[in-house]
Amino acid sequence: MKDITLKEIATKLGISITTVSKALKNYPDVSEKTKKAVIELAHNLHYTPNSFAVNLRTKESKTIGLIIPEVVHHFFSNIINAIIDEAEKNGYLVIILQSNESIELEKKQVELLINKRVDGILISLSNGSNNDDHIQEIIRRNIPFVMFDKISKLSKCSKVIIDDQIAAFNAVQHLIDNGCKKIAHIRGPLNPQNSIDRFIGYKKALEKNNIPFDPKLVYPCENVTFEEGYHFAKQIINEHPDVDGIFTITDLVAVGVLSFLNDNEIKIPEKIAVIGFSNWFMSQVVTPKLSTIEQPSHEMGREAFNLLLEEINCHKEEKNFEPKQIVLETSVIARESSIKKQNIY
Amino acid sequence: MKDITLKEIATKLGISITTVSKALKNYPDVSEKTKKAVIELAHNLHYTPNSFAVNLRTKESKTIGLIIPEVVHHFFSNIINAIIDEAEKNGYLVIILQSNESIELEKKQVELLINKRVDGILISLSNGSNNDDHIQEIIRRNIPFVMFDKISKLSKCSKVIIDDQIAAFNAVQHLIDNGCKKIAHIRGPLNPQNSIDRFIGYKKALEKNNIPFDPKLVYPCENVTFEEGYHFAKQIINEHPDVDGIFTITDLVAVGVLSFLNDNEIKIPEKIAVIGFSNWFMSQVVTPKLSTIEQPSHEMGREAFNLLLEEINCHKEEKNFEPKQIVLETSVIARESSIKKQNIY
Repeated sequence: MKDITLKEIATKLGISITTVSKALKNYPDVSEKTKKAVIELAHNLHYTPNSFAVNLRTKESKTIGLIIPEVVHHFFSNIINAIIDEAEKNGYLVIILQSNESIELEKKQVELLINKRVDGILISLSNGSNNDDHIQEIIRRNIPFVMFDKISKLSKCSKVIIDDQIAAFNAVQHLIDNGCKKIAHIRGPLNPQNSIDRFIGYKKALEKNNIPFDPKLVYPCENVTFEEGYHFAKQIINEHPDVDGIFTITDLVAVGVLSFLNDNEIKIPEKIAVIGFSNWFMSQVVTPKLSTIEQPSHEMGREAFNLLLEEINCHKEEKNFEPKQIVLETSVIARESSIKKQNIY
Repeated sequence: MKDITLKEIATKLGISITTVSKALKNYPDVSEKTKKAVIELAHNLHYTPNSFAVNLRTKESKTIGLIIPEVVHHFFSNIINAIIDEAEKNGYLVIILQSNESIELEKKQVELLINKRVDGILISLSNGSNNDDHIQEIIRRNIPFVMFDKISKLSKCSKVIIDDQIAAFNAVQHLIDNGCKKIAHIRGPLNPQNSIDRFIGYKKALEKNNIPFDPKLVYPCENVTFEEGYHFAKQIINEHPDVDGIFTITDLVAVGVLSFLNDNEIKIPEKIAVIGFSNWFMSQVVTPKLSTIEQPSHEMGREAFNLLLEEINCHKEEKNFEPKQIVLETSVIARESSIKKQNIY
C-alpha cells in the first residue's frame, strides 16, 4: 500500500500543505473547523508521519543499539529484558546485535550502529576484545555510550559493573568456611576483565587463608560451556584426587561439574563442594541445588539504560556529561552443593 | 561531535556538492584525482552518510521489528538468536520488543514499528491476544509480515509453526507406551492456539488408546511458570493419587513438577512419569533427566526471517507475494523421567 502524504490530504481538502501540517500540529492560526477536517481525513486515510523525515528534522532516531556476546544466556537475556523494558518506558526502541564473542563482528556492529545514527550505544564486550579502536571511535564521536558487565577498564565512558574480585573472594571464602582445603578454579578465558578479576579474587581468598596457590589447580575455559565443566571436573578428579572444592567462572560450567560428579557417584558436597557464579535459574533446580553468587542482572540492565539516557539528555541540552561508574552489590547464595553436613548441624 | 556534511567537504576542496556526492559514489564523470581527494578527506573527517537522508531517498530502513512474549525464555531466546544472526547476514538490523504476554503492549508495539517504518515485522503472539485488529492493520498496510510459534490461525499472512497437536499426541503416546494409564495434563492458558492444540493432542492420544478423558485431570496454568508446575503437582497428588503420568505445556512447568516429586520422595518415573515440551537446556541437567518434545527453535527463527525477506524482496520488485505456511518437524526426546524400568530391560 502506498503511504499517504501531506500533499494528498491538502489536495483532497483544497488547502495548502502548510495548513495541513499546521493543523496536525495543532497550531493556533488554523481554524478549529479546518483542524477537524484534516484530522478526520488523516485518520480515515491512515496517515502516519514519515519517520525518516521526522528523524532528519530532529536528528534523533529514538533508537539505541545494544551489543552483547550472547542472547541465549540466562544472565544476558535478563539484562536485555531490563533494557528493552526501560527503553520502551522512555520512548526508545532497541536494536540488538550479538557479537558471538567475536571481536571482528563486534567492530562491524559498532560501525553499523554508528552509521545507523542510533542515539546511544550499550555494550558488553566479547571475550575476544583485546583492542578497543572501535570503542575509542564511539567515544571520539561523542556518541552516548555505556559499557556493562564485560568492560575495558581504561576506556573513558560510563560503566555498570559488579566487583568481580570481591564476589569471587566471597565465593572461595564460603568454600573455605565450609571446610574446603584444596580448591580448584575453572576460570574463564584469559582476556575478559571479569574472568581476570574472578581469578584474582580466588587467589586473594587463598592467600588470606594461608592456603598456597597452585597454578596447576586453575583450568581455563575457552567457551565457558556445560561441556567444559564436565570435562574439567573429570580432569581435576584424575589429576588431583584430593581436591575438595571447585569454584567455577559461571553456573553453566558448575552444572557441568555437578553432572560429572553425579554420573560418577562422587558425593557433593561431602567429597567435593561446588560453587558457581551468576545465579542462573537452573541452579535452583539441579541436584544438588547449586551454591552461587547472586549478580543483579535486572538492576544492571536498568542502570545501564538510565545512565545512557542521562547522557543522551545532556547532549540534547548541550550540557557537559561526566562519565559515571556504578558498582552493584553481589552476595553468596548458599545451597546444597557447598554446605557440608558438619556446618548444618 | 558535529556530523560532517557533503557541503563541508565541498567547501574545503573548493568543488561542488554534486561533485563530492558523485565522487563518493564512484561516478565515471569525475576525475580519478578528484575522487581520490574526496575519499581521502571524507575518510580523515570521519564522514558517514546521513542514514536518515538515505532512508528518505530509498524508502528502506534496513531494519525489521520483532515482537515476542518474553526474552528470558530458552525457546524464544534461541529464536531471537537465529533471527538476528540471519538478519545481519542479509544486512538487516532487528529491533526487539517484548509484549510480556500483554495484548495492550503488543498493540502499542505494532503501532510503534509501523510508525518507525520498519521494512518488515515478525511476531509471536502474546497469550493475551484474543483480538487481532493490530494484526489486520499490518496486513492492510501491506507491510511484510510473518507470524511464528504463537499465531492466529485466521490471519492471512506467512506463518512458521510446528504441528502442536501431533507433537502433544506423540508426547502422550510415549507416556502410554511406557505403561501410563491415568495421565494428567498441566496445560497452558485458554487463548493461545498452541496451548489449545497441545490440549487437543493430549485428548486425541487418550481417545486413540481407549483411555477415558477426564476434564478434572486437566490443570490450566495462568503464567506457565516453575511455581505453577510445583503447585499443580502437589494438587494432582492430593486429588488423584493414582495418576501415573503427567504431560506439561512446557519444560519449565515440568521441572516444577519434578521438583515437587523429588522434594516428596515420589519416585520418577516408577510412581509418576513426566514429559515436558520444548527441550530447554536445563531438561538435560535436572534429576531425573526430563523427557520432552524437541521443537526446532533455531530453524523456526531462520525460516521466519527468510520468509520475511522473500516478501520484502517481492515488494521491492513490485511482484505479488502469496503468504506461505511452513510446518517444522518435532520429535520425542525420551530421557529418565518417563522410561520405566520394564521398558529399559
